[in-house]
Amino acid sequence: MSKTVEFFFDYSSPYSYLASTQIESVAQRTGAQLRWRPFLLGAVFKATGNIPPASNLHKARYMLQDLLNWTRHYELPDFRLPDSFPANSVKADRLGLVAQEKGKLPQFTHALYRAVFAEGRDLSDLGVLSSVLGQVGLPPAEALARAEAQEIKDRLRKNTDEAVERGSFGAPTFFVGDDLYVGNDRLVFVEKALRSQRR
Amino acid sequence: MSKTVEFFFDYSSPYSYLASTQIESVAQRTGAQLRWRPFLLGAVFKATGNIPPASNLHKARYMLQDLLNWTRHYELPDFRLPDSFPANSVKADRLGLVAQEKGKLPQFTHALYRAVFAEGRDLSDLGVLSSVLGQVGLPPAEALARAEAQEIKDRLRKNTDEAVERGSFGAPTFFVGDDLYVGNDRLVFVEKALRSQRR
Repeated sequence: MSKTVEFFFDYSSPYSYLASTQIESVAQRTGAQLRWRPFLLGAVFKATGNIPPASNLHKARYMLQDLLNWTRHYELPDFRLPDSFPANSVKADRLGLVAQEKGKLPQFTHALYRAVFAEGRDLSDLGVLSSVLGQVGLPPAEALARAEAQEIKDRLRKNTDEAVERGSFGAPTFFVGDDLYVGNDRLVFVEKALRSQRR
Repeated sequence: MSKTVEFFFDYSSPYSYLASTQIESVAQRTGAQLRWRPFLLGAVFKATGNIPPASNLHKARYMLQDLLNWTRHYELPDFRLPDSFPANSVKADRLGLVAQEKGKLPQFTHALYRAVFAEGRDLSDLGVLSSVLGQVGLPPAEALARAEAQEIKDRLRKNTDEAVERGSFGAPTFFVGDDLYVGNDRLVFVEKALRSQRR
């Protein structure tokens, strides 16, 4: 079996966005397979009793600067917080799974995160979602219909339940084997763990 | 004025312990002055409505592994959580200020953190505190008496209030000028900020 990093993320999570811009390079540098796994962060918080970091006003104020520091560090467009933040991400997360069926999950993820956290768009807005689907060559009406299928809904729930069962309490969550890492700022440990593994 | 990094820390905070093992090198590498500033983390949480990360059970379980990852990354003795965690740190923090009056704050800090987070000792125990004071050449009885002086109590409160006023909500907290950085995992940004400043 080849070595693998699993990346659990949600489209409403700015720190997952940051990690999404780096995780492919980490996998490439270490010769690891990358599994993109959308999950529903709100349900993770509910299941674990954890709370979003921005629930605290003092922390929220700092987070804005911290996110800007990270986007500059990674040489991305300056971080932008959408007016709609935090938006309901369930539709977007399901669309991620639809994109996955078509082999376009990474492309869809990069395009949607850019729209949301670099351009400040509302990820729960159907117009925004349709435009991003179109950008990556997925017919919007068809994808939006497929996102309502029970199979897709179940798949998102399954990813979420599995992550919580394996110890996740926030996003982004990474697994290397059974080893759990939480947060964009733990990518250095993810990379170390992958390097220390044989293929 | 020479460039300076301020390091606010509390003896009950394991992530402050981690940062305390690195901050002198960061200051040295960047030619910055380092100001060690004990503060009372419990009072910071109270003032800001923030909660300790380990209050959540799922997070607490992960934190133990995360702290072990960090001590291995920094090549320190394996992290050890004292049975007494989280212990009341007010006496220890005041002793830090007493050590500072004697020019021994860094030595006292390294010795106390090692006792607590590498050896699992109870930082609220007078025997532990006395032993650490002795190790760094401070007569324990005298230091413990001085720690009860109003001037010392006020100094700890002043450090704490100032940190909160400037945006702190947790530990460790760093300032480079007015720029706030929170967490051992933000030392990379602290170092970048110091490098980008002229003397």
